[in-house]
Formats: sequence, C-alpha cells, structure tokens
Amino acid sequence: MSVTELFEVTDKVDQTDLQLGADGRLRHLLTMHGLDRRQITALLDEAELYLSDIGQPVIRTDALRGRTVANLFFEPSTRTRASFDLAARRLGADVLNLDVNTSSRKKGESILDTIYTLQAMQVDVFVVRDAQAGVPAYIARHANDHVSILNAGESDVAHPTQALLDLLTIRLHKGDFENTTVAIVGDIAHSRVARSTSEALVTMGIKELRLISPKSLAPEDGTVPLQARVLHNLNEGVRGADVVMALRIQRERIGNIDGVPGIDEYFANYGVSHERMKLAAPGAIVMHPGPMNRGIEIESSLADGPNSVIPEQVKNGVAVRMAVLSTVMKSRATT
Amino acid sequence: MSVTELFEVTDKVDQTDLQLGADGRLRHLLTMHGLDRRQITALLDEAELYLSDIGQPVIRTDALRGRTVANLFFEPSTRTRASFDLAARRLGADVLNLDVNTSSRKKGESILDTIYTLQAMQVDVFVVRDAQAGVPAYIARHANDHVSILNAGESDVAHPTQALLDLLTIRLHKGDFENTTVAIVGDIAHSRVARSTSEALVTMGIKELRLISPKSLAPEDGTVPLQARVLHNLNEGVRGADVVMALRIQRERIGNIDGVPGIDEYFANYGVSHERMKLAAPGAIVMHPGPMNRGIEIESSLADGPNSVIPEQVKNGVAVRMAVLSTVMKSRATT
Amino acid sequence: MSVTELFEVTDKVDQTDLQLGADGRLRHLLTMHGLDRRQITALLDEAELYLSDIGQPVIRTDALRGRTVANLFFEPSTRTRASFDLAARRLGADVLNLDVNTSSRKKGESILDTIYTLQAMQVDVFVVRDAQAGVPAYIARHANDHVSILNAGESDVAHPTQALLDLLTIRLHKGDFENTTVAIVGDIAHSRVARSTSEALVTMGIKELRLISPKSLAPEDGTVPLQARVLHNLNEGVRGADVVMALRIQRERIGNIDGVPGIDEYFANYGVSHERMKLAAPGAIVMHPGPMNRGIEIESSLADGPNSVIPEQVKNGVAVRMAVLSTVMKSRATT
Repeated sequence: MSVTELFEVTDKVDQTDLQLGADGRLRHLLTMHGLDRRQITALLDEAELYLSDIGQPVIRTDALRGRTVANLFFEPSTRTRASFDLAARRLGADVLNLDVNTSSRKKGESILDTIYTLQAMQVDVFVVRDAQAGVPAYIARHANDHVSILNAGESDVAHPTQALLDLLTIRLHKGDFENTTVAIVGDIAHSRVARSTSEALVTMGIKELRLISPKSLAPEDGTVPLQARVLHNLNEGVRGADVVMALRIQRERIGNIDGVPGIDEYFANYGVSHERMKLAAPGAIVMHPGPMNRGIEIESSLADGPNSVIPEQVKNGVAVRMAVLSTVMKSRATT
Repeated sequence: MSVTELFEVTDKVDQTDLQLGADGRLRHLLTMHGLDRRQITALLDEAELYLSDIGQPVIRTDALRGRTVANLFFEPSTRTRASFDLAARRLGADVLNLDVNTSSRKKGESILDTIYTLQAMQVDVFVVRDAQAGVPAYIARHANDHVSILNAGESDVAHPTQALLDLLTIRLHKGDFENTTVAIVGDIAHSRVARSTSEALVTMGIKELRLISPKSLAPEDGTVPLQARVLHNLNEGVRGADVVMALRIQRERIGNIDGVPGIDEYFANYGVSHERMKLAAPGAIVMHPGPMNRGIEIESSLADGPNSVIPEQVKNGVAVRMAVLSTVMKSRATT
Repeated sequence: MSVTELFEVTDKVDQTDLQLGADGRLRHLLTMHGLDRRQITALLDEAELYLSDIGQPVIRTDALRGRTVANLFFEPSTRTRASFDLAARRLGADVLNLDVNTSSRKKGESILDTIYTLQAMQVDVFVVRDAQAGVPAYIARHANDHVSILNAGESDVAHPTQALLDLLTIRLHKGDFENTTVAIVGDIAHSRVARSTSEALVTMGIKELRLISPKSLAPEDGTVPLQARVLHNLNEGVRGADVVMALRIQRERIGNIDGVPGIDEYFANYGVSHERMKLAAPGAIVMHPGPMNRGIEIESSLADGPNSVIPEQVKNGVAVRMAVLSTVMKSRATT
C-alpha cells in the first residue's frame, strides 16, 4: 500500500475525530471542520494574551520549555514557517527547521520514516506544510500518542491557523461576528484560505459570507459552507461589506481563466481597489493572507492604507500559533 | 600541498593519539579505535542519564551554556544533523547549522579556512560529516587547542556516535555484551556503521560478532576486527543471534552485485524478515541505523513490530551525543 | 515605480540623516559616512567589553532578550551571517535566518513585503546583505519606526561592521590611529571593505592611509576619502606601514586586468608576502577581511604566521556586531 493511496482516504469526519482526543480536547489542528464556537473562542481568547504593541518586547512564556517543535515544510514558505518558528520560540520551545526536499527525501526515506525518526528524538509537535492533500491527517493517524500535528497549509484544502488569525483580526476590529458581513474575493476554487476561513466564520455565526470569483474559479459543491453566497460580481459582493478579503491568485492562472484574458482585466473585474471599497460599509477593513500580487488582486496603495489590516493579520498569526501550540500541549498533559 | 593529499596520510593509530589528549581523556571523537572498555562504558553510563520517556519533557542541563557547537555537514543528512542539533541545545549550547555546499565553498574557501574562521568566532565543537575519508582527523590536526571535533559520519570509514548508540541500545536490552551474539547484515564493505559498531562491540567483549553479506560486499581485510566472523549465508548468520542489525544498501548497488541481480533477489537472500528472525534467539532484537529501504534490506512490518528497537536507537542517539558533547567539553576544562 | 528605480536615489547625506535618529543616536547602521569619532569610539569601547579569550565561555548578556533579529541574506555568506547570528544570540535575541533567494522571492513577493511581513511579526532588527547598491537604505526608509536595519555588505559600496572590526583590531594592536599608517592592497575599485574601512580610518584621524592597486583597479573619484594616497606600486605602499591589509580579488577579474595577465603576475605585483612585509614598519600586522585566496592576494604562510591578526579580526567581528546590535536597540528605548 503506497503512501499516495493512503492520502486519498481522508475525509472531514475522520479528521474531526482525529484532531480531538477522546476527551474532546484539541490534540492536533488539521482542519477548522468540527471545531465548535467555544473551542474557537478559547483559542482566540488565549491568542489575545500574546499580543503586545509593535516595538515593545514580545510576550514570552516557558509553556513549551523542554519541548521540541519541528517545522516540516515540504512546500517552501518564508512567512508561515517564520511565524510558527517565532511562536514556538516565544513559548520557550526548541525548534527544528527541516526543509525536507533537500535532505532525506533524496535518500528515498518516506515521510513516515522521517516522522518516526523525529518523534523518537522526542519532537513533540510537527508543523506540516505540503502541496498534497491528506498529508497532515495521514501523519496524525500514524504518529505516536504523544505527538501533535499542526496543519500549516495543505494543498488547496485547509489552512486552519490562517482561519484563526483572520477571525482574531475580524474580532479585534468588528467586535463580533453576528453583525458582520465578510466578502472574500478572488480564486476561491483553489484557495485553502477561503475554505478554512469560510468554515470558521460560519461556525462563529457570521451575519453574511460572500465568496466572489470569476465563474471559472467558483468553489466546487461541498468545498465551502452552504451558508456562503457565491457571487461573480465584485460590486455586488463588496456592497455593504464590513470586511473585504482579497485572495492571492497565481499569475499562471490568469489568461487561462474563462472571461479573464489578462492581468488588467482581472484587476478591473476582481481587484480590490479604493474605488471598489467605496461601496463597502463605513469603516470596512481590507484583508489579504499574503503574499500579495500588488496591482493584480489588490490595489497597492490600498494594501498600505488606513483601512488595511494586513500587517495586523501577520502579527495576529504569531499569537494564534502560540495559542494553538500551547493548547495542544495542554491537552497532552492530561492524557 | 593540497588538502586532498593531506587527507590520505591519516591512519588509525594517529587518530587514537589525536582524539585522546595527553591525559588520556577524550578531546575529539574521530573513531572507536583506541577507546577502551572503561571509556566507552563511561560514555554509555552518562548517556543513560539523558534518557526520559517519550512524551515527557526531555532532560536538559546547562553543561554547555555559553558554548557554541557548529554542525558542518558537507554531505546532507536530516537525521544525524537533527540529533546533534537537539543534543547540543538540550545541553544549553548555541548551535550553528552550516550547509557548506551552498555557501563558502562556492567562493573557493577551503575547509580549513572555514574552521579557522569559526573557531575565531569561539565555536567550541565542530560536528563534521563528509563523504571523503580523513576529513575529521585532518580538521582535528589543524584546529586550535580549545576546539573539539566530532565525527558525524566519514565516507565508509567511521561513524562513532552510531556505534555508541548501537551499544547503548544493546546494553539496555541485553544487559551485557559478554553473553550476546550480534549479526550485522548487508553491505558490510561500504558501511561506516558496520566498521565502527564492530570495533566497539569487540572492545566491549562481545560473545560473537557475525558480518553477513553477499561475497562481493564482504569487508576488505583490515577494515573489521579479526574477531568478527565473515559469513555469506543469512540463515547461518541469524541462527541463535540475540541482535540482528540490517544495514542500508544503496539501491544503485543492487544489480551491480555479483549474484544479486535485483531487489527481489537481494531481499530473498539478505533481507531481514519475520521468517528469518525465527532462527534467531528468543527475544532477539532487530536494529537498523536508518534511513531504511523497507522491503529491500528489511521487511517493513518487522521494522515496525515488537522486536524492532529502531526508534529506540534514534532516541538513544540523542543521549549518546549529549554524553559525547559533555565529555569532550569536560576534558577541555582541565587543559 | 519599481523597486530598482528607488534604489538609485540614495546618496550618502541621505543615509547619514537616515541612520541617525533626530536625537543623533544610531538607529540604523548603513554606512560609516557621517559617524563621528565619538560615536565610533563608543562602539569600539562597547565591543571590547564583549571580548573573552578563545577557549573560554563567551560573554553573554540579556540585552536583547525578547527581541528578534532577522538575517536577510540576498547574497550568500557563511561567515558574516554566522557572525551576526552568534552576536545576536549571545545578547539573548531570537534569530531568524532567511535565505531569501530560495523562498518568498520565488513567489514574486517584493523585498518590502518581506520586510513588512517580518516587522509585523515583531522582528526588531534586520541584518541585510545584498549584491545591489541601495537596498539597505531603501529598506530603512520604508521600515516602521521601531525597526533597525544593519548593513551586512552592500554591493561594492559599504560594509560598515567590517570597518568597525578592522578599527577595533588596529586599535588593540597599535593603541591609536594618529600614529598609524595603514596600507590597503588589491582590488580597491570593487571593494566595499576598502571604502568603509577607509572612511572610518580617516574619521579616526589615521596618520596615513594608502590604497594600492593595479591602475585598472584604482578607486573612482569620490568613492574613497580625499586624504587617502592612491598608489600602484606595492613596495612603495608597504614601506613603513604599521598595518597591511590585503583584499580579496575575484579570480574572474584576473586576466581581465590591464597589465595583470595571470595569477602569478598578480601575486608577484600585488600579493602581500613575507618578502614584502620586510619593507613594513617593525611589528607591522597583516589583515584580510576573508575569505582569502591564498597564494593570490596573500602568501599562505603569512596568513597563518605571527604577524597575522586575521583570526582576531573574525573574533572582533562578533564583538563589534554585539556592540552595534546593543547600541541600535538602546537608541530605540528612548524613542
């Protein structure tokens, strides 16, 4: 039975069972699916404790002193890896950064043997990013009982810590979710951010969630919550929204999208701009998961302007990752 | 005089003199050759102090606080590098990870100038892996008096910390060496593991040591201890053994080995399997230095089964590396 | 407006204003230009506090505890990166090492978005090396108020921490600058070391500064201080000098230099050798910024001989970088 075959069998219900221990506590973070409002709120509440003003020394604890966190990035990423790295170190953990492409995979060592080896070295948490769907759950299913797996971006399927940082950012600016309308704009079909954030927003009781994309980049059935309104007109999507989130589009896709032959046309139709934001609610905020294609999915000066909360998203990202690390470690202490 | 020429002149007696200071204490760890039973036992005893249960916080000390360890891997390795990295950090050291292929060698800087530079930055210990024989001893001969060199894998010549972790694993399971029979199976000719572990087992007074390989992969004269029995039949080799250690074979070699035209035939003749283990002594353990070629030199389910101590080897590896680091640092304190 | 265009507009006066805060304290370190004798002396004095004997534990403080330093090397470097890394960690900082070529630049993320992202993660100091002139100042101009930028080597324009370590080394050996003659030899035209060190030596009131090179590698007008004597004869340059510093020459340049057709001829005319050092003042020291081309710009045995202070330069490099890190962090504390 090959590793590839095993990756296929994962479904959302399995993952929910897998990530919550028998006591219902968070043992792994694989997906936003199956986390309830109370659990998400507890993570956001803890994350807030780790926020300090830019320029001030960061909040540090010894919650993970004597613990080891391994960043296993099978897909390159500066920002997410740095965010997890800093989160773990600010909790006192030792951090191993392993770029697996350039080392043991060369020797034909399988993913699982890498995990078995590292858990034998008493690594406690694996932060996993992979371009292939199913890898984090596959690892969680096979790792030993004392190990936690955190999904740091999985194909176009899930990116749960991104969802948490988006939620924290929205909560800090809008206070609650029940009175907030969120518009997510761009390549919804291929976006793990859109999927995880949509799922979490619906769980939190968001007033209205709109997913706006060209028709050829609309989500397939079952990949986003039923409560979401799928739209193809950006004006309609932005009108009255409290939060407008632009998604990164891969440049290679532009030109291959039906009805969007070039960058200029993509920006004209689906770019989040000052002009477009006039349609949004007063005080609406602009978000982007980064890295941005300035001038394509978002107007550059808007990203740097007063309504942009993009740098706050990054800052909140470290805080939510600290909260997740601390939470999964606490769940272990009781097992 | 080129660096390459200098590498040639190293012999085992030179290395023994080099690695033990004038007071007979361990200053470098280059080879198992010349270490006596008392010295090896002291290292294993100290390593045991660093073992804690999987899932519990690791043992940490401040023995290397204020010290700097540089991992100089001229040959890629995830596992050995991670093991030394964690060992050093769990003793409180600062660790520099340098992948030398991708940086200063580009500029034509020689190995020695890299060492001179790093020792001037007050690096205390160099952990060196190189595909070329003689490099660790060459560095030890030229580094300044306050620096220790640890061999982390040297061509097909030596891998002394692997030998120590193998010994610790055997001692923990079998209690002593005098009543234990060890069978090492596979590509003996090219295995630095076989050489270092054989040498150490004989020093410790192993009851019987068997080295089993295809004829074309048998050890050359003088590369393994005289006490070892060199065999070519796996059934004979495994019969009554208390420990069976499979070695990694490079896939490229299979098909080029006399009498072993393919993978299936290699596994049939030299693969360590459940079937073969029936011939071993009751309670025999299965070992492998990793990374494994499952289904080639070892049956996959055997590697994950109850007789396998492969994950313990990895865990013990961190502990013996902590013991080695602490020991060489103590030897310096008295100079 | 492209990033490349912006890089062009930097001049030295701008950089001076930029690197000193409104209170005249050092906020960034971009260039030696504009630093006065008092400021340089204060940095050297602090650096001396961080020196300990080789083989002894290094000096450590908690001055940067809770602070994060990011090494952003857009050009590879083992030694300078390791030096900054150790300097930051010995002050208690968390260090992020980012090799930007292999990660987010792939995704088309611009330098500034990398900076914006990392400063949002509460990185406090960016150590920047880039092959393109203007990058450190460009970043300093756009980073937020609480961030410091340290130039770790900028095209052929500036390398201020190298200048500081050269000054510290000279001061430790010669006591002062007013009675010291310094000869810098080699590829002056392309050397950021020659530029920054020359500038700093003149500020400190050096008795005489000589820059010796083939005519085709002489400095362009305005790139070195007016007080420097530009020479083309090495005997004349070395005669009576207290300090002789050889510069690295790129091997590709040799053969393309007017009047220097090959390596042997380069060494004969511009190599710093035992023979040449006989012309220098008694007790003259030999320096090199590294990495060395032994046998090209410097005689190998001279580099390892008693007059060489090359390893001390490396050691002093860590100390001056600790002083710079500590100084820029103190300047922030008052803003």
